[in-house]
Amino acid sequence: MQIHASIQGVRQALKNCARIVFVPTMGNLHAGHIALMTQARAHGDTVVSSIFVNRLQFGLNEDFNSYPRTFKEDCEKLEAAGIDLLFAPRESDLYPEPQQYQVDPPDIQNQLDGAFRPGHFRGVATVVLKLFNIVQPQVAVFGKKDYQQLLILRNMTRQLALPIEIIGGETVRADDGLALSSRNTYLTPEERAEAPRLSRTLAEIREAIGKGDHNFAKLERDAMFTLDNKGWKTDYVAIRQQSDLQAPQPDSRELVILAASRLGIPRLIDNLEILI
Amino acid sequence: MQIHASIQGVRQALKNCARIVFVPTMGNLHAGHIALMTQARAHGDTVVSSIFVNRLQFGLNEDFNSYPRTFKEDCEKLEAAGIDLLFAPRESDLYPEPQQYQVDPPDIQNQLDGAFRPGHFRGVATVVLKLFNIVQPQVAVFGKKDYQQLLILRNMTRQLALPIEIIGGETVRADDGLALSSRNTYLTPEERAEAPRLSRTLAEIREAIGKGDHNFAKLERDAMFTLDNKGWKTDYVAIRQQSDLQAPQPDSRELVILAASRLGIPRLIDNLEILI
Repeated sequence: MQIHASIQGVRQALKNCARIVFVPTMGNLHAGHIALMTQARAHGDTVVSSIFVNRLQFGLNEDFNSYPRTFKEDCEKLEAAGIDLLFAPRESDLYPEPQQYQVDPPDIQNQLDGAFRPGHFRGVATVVLKLFNIVQPQVAVFGKKDYQQLLILRNMTRQLALPIEIIGGETVRADDGLALSSRNTYLTPEERAEAPRLSRTLAEIREAIGKGDHNFAKLERDAMFTLDNKGWKTDYVAIRQQSDLQAPQPDSRELVILAASRLGIPRLIDNLEILI
Repeated sequence: MQIHASIQGVRQALKNCARIVFVPTMGNLHAGHIALMTQARAHGDTVVSSIFVNRLQFGLNEDFNSYPRTFKEDCEKLEAAGIDLLFAPRESDLYPEPQQYQVDPPDIQNQLDGAFRPGHFRGVATVVLKLFNIVQPQVAVFGKKDYQQLLILRNMTRQLALPIEIIGGETVRADDGLALSSRNTYLTPEERAEAPRLSRTLAEIREAIGKGDHNFAKLERDAMFTLDNKGWKTDYVAIRQQSDLQAPQPDSRELVILAASRLGIPRLIDNLEILI
């Protein structure tokens, strides 16, 4: 596996590569990331990944400084996964000057996770656009665990006429249902035992909807109440349309149940799709 | 010359082309545009131009509907200039849905022309980014007459890590000094006779600075007073640094004098560079 920190180095290395598939990450790789890499391999000839903890997408009070950085282990995992090239820029490579030109997503950036993380999706969209311009892939893979991020990046790619196909990868879960996340490492053993309640709660809502309960507002409210009674601090539980993450219309068939809640230090997010 | 309206058509046609040079326009081509095409030819193998009157960059009270559209004559001129491919999308090709993802330039977008045309440079940056993503040139040429636009596009290209070299083309002038512009067609014969005063005023400021007069605020004020006394409605005359269009510092050597003023219907802009 080639490793490059400089934009120039990546461009040079990829110059004559056929069908490039790209999987951007912030490192601290777990089985969820590796599943995306495996999926990427099926879509192209050259699989490129990147590791960059992107300051632009972290709020002032968020965990940019403490975000787990495990570069050596990450490289071993990427090597084992058969990645061809890793782009691992320093901050001075990607942001040699303050990033003044940014992608401004529409109002969806201020809803759900965006309501609790002002500027987050603007930072995500901007760094991903830059990474796209550097790697110039034909295909890019993002996990469905960050459902809103996937939607925003898919829409950005289409609206900016980027010649890139965006693919969503399924969320990988621990045996007890907890969605894998770099932020799970912040959990104490007690919290880790409690953590699967988030995905269980989503599954319960899915089951209720499946049985015909379409009182979405009450389902959301009850779920938040249950979580908070067990020591969580819930930002939202929301039942939305898959297509645009807006409130379901009477004829909506493809829904997604999304949640974000803090358990101890980490803020965990998860979601479940449902067809009705 | 190939002509394509669809994004798909352009991509297909350019798939195997070497070094592409791109000159985007809004049509109504004059000798200033053709000079950019000639310059483009020197920088690559395949010269691509585009004609698209971009609604996004026009204000609500501006001349989007009346902007001169002369497609047949434009095609003849491009053909004569040896252009290889013209991208002439309909609005439904470039904006099949409302453009919600936009490039947000920094505060320079609200200064000079931006102060009088809110949202203008956001619209310019967004459409140019889309055109870049469609044509994927190695080089792009923009006229220096739109000096602020050139600076913003150059900075956007660098900050978004686009692999494109931006080249500025010199302003082409009529014999009496008037900078060529599609909007000159709005001038009555009397106004056309008066119009060269704009470039003369800039030249007088350049001469005064050259002789050691560095009282920039007074030079600007006097020039606006003179123009407005002759029936112009001046938005600004401004002496700025070439590098960032900010006010000159004591050690600034490379300056540019910029002006925008309305004469009858059209709002004319012009600028002159000066080294001190």
